Amino acid sequence: MRDHLTIIKVGGNVVEEEASLKSFLKDFSRIAGNKILVHGGGKTATILSEKLGLESKKVDGRRITDAETLKVCTMVYAGLVNKTIVAGLQALGNNAIGLTGADLDLIRAVKRPVGEVDYGFVGDVKQINYQALNELLNTGAVPVLAPITHDGHGQLLNTNADTIASELAVAMCFDYDVRLIFCFEKSGVLMNESDEHSKISEITPELFEQLKADGIVSGGMIPKLSDGFAAMRRGVGVVVITNPAGISEGLRGTRLVLE
Amino acid sequence: MRDHLTIIKVGGNVVEEEASLKSFLKDFSRIAGNKILVHGGGKTATILSEKLGLESKKVDGRRITDAETLKVCTMVYAGLVNKTIVAGLQALGNNAIGLTGADLDLIRAVKRPVGEVDYGFVGDVKQINYQALNELLNTGAVPVLAPITHDGHGQLLNTNADTIASELAVAMCFDYDVRLIFCFEKSGVLMNESDEHSKISEITPELFEQLKADGIVSGGMIPKLSDGFAAMRRGVGVVVITNPAGISEGLRGTRLVLE
Repeated sequence: MRDHLTIIKVGGNVVEEEASLKSFLKDFSRIAGNKILVHGGGKTATILSEKLGLESKKVDGRRITDAETLKVCTMVYAGLVNKTIVAGLQALGNNAIGLTGADLDLIRAVKRPVGEVDYGFVGDVKQINYQALNELLNTGAVPVLAPITHDGHGQLLNTNADTIASELAVAMCFDYDVRLIFCFEKSGVLMNESDEHSKISEITPELFEQLKADGIVSGGMIPKLSDGFAAMRRGVGVVVITNPAGISEGLRGTRLVLE
Repeated sequence: MRDHLTIIKVGGNVVEEEASLKSFLKDFSRIAGNKILVHGGGKTATILSEKLGLESKKVDGRRITDAETLKVCTMVYAGLVNKTIVAGLQALGNNAIGLTGADLDLIRAVKRPVGEVDYGFVGDVKQINYQALNELLNTGAVPVLAPITHDGHGQLLNTNADTIASELAVAMCFDYDVRLIFCFEKSGVLMNESDEHSKISEITPELFEQLKADGIVSGGMIPKLSDGFAAMRRGVGVVVITNPAGISEGLRGTRLVLE
């Protein structure tokens, strides 16, 4: 029997507010077995950018990253948010290690080619060093990944955290039974954004297309779902979108199903 | 025969300027065998603090760290500077891994008690997880340490990078023959700060006291030398203060000697 591995991407307000992050980390620390945490931190980066007089631009939920914005993202994601999480997990008895894609060459990416949109210093994942992650997991460590990658030639790159989580899930499938959980402040994908009871239990690719067309899913939820379906097609067993309560209470939320 | 380990603390302008950092990393990447890099980044933190309207305060070369300043230090040291170095070393074929004291519980510290001066969120090193560092070194990884530690209860702490390098050197003595190199922009300790030819080749504790009394060494150089002598008394074989050229050219610079 293969070992299980839980990969959780945490983002949205869960990461940005001290109290909700603390509460999430408590839930996360109780998850047994191998686990990897991937985090965002976009709002904090936006606030710091504004304080520094930089303009934040996004297209389809993806940030445009000029050189100064890359510095802000590296500081916030790899520095403040990552190390706050690591210190928090250490206090809860999890042997966390905070990493970017540059560390141990974990995630190699290529700068996105300039097409209709110039995303700047944004990286598309090319290669995951799953052996190095495996070795860390085998020592009992809990990798905590910030959404910064590198190109192998010294350039750091900003990379969507949902995509990193999905790509990791696919790469780790080789050795583990992987479940991938996208955790944010809502209980799942909602039919009506302001009604937590309107949660959709299961989404198929067909329903996803329809929800997109109807404008019910939009912004950052679109790449999250696209990436989730892509991961399932490449071997990831379970993909769920939920909130911290959904994790601690037996993995409720919106489950992706291929058919 | 025991393995050798080179611990280099790099700081000052070497870290702060892109060209000098790049040149230093090239020299560092060529050092054979086990090595650990500890870096500063104080000037970049000061500049960011100023941009954010925070005041930078120092006493005897040590920063006073309030909650907002700790965030800035965590962002700059653990984020921007650390990951820039890691990506640079990866491009040079060194399998760098960037870490703080919180990661893998590498460096546990205690918040400095409030005495005559309240240093704020500053940590004094209590315990080094040399086993975890050993395991990383055994895989061929090159640890790159940012001067941020934690208290084991979730609190990150700002810690002097010179002290971290010295404490690491002492802890690693158990398993390795350690040489500790403090690298900055000057060729060593200078009798006359504006004359690179006035380098002192060797400093004893007695000469150190005299140089302090005469005002020839001051500011951040005082804890650097104190820590260096303390490390030698606790078993570190070689302690040298030098610049990048001094490292690549057979370890020239100012050597500490106990008598």
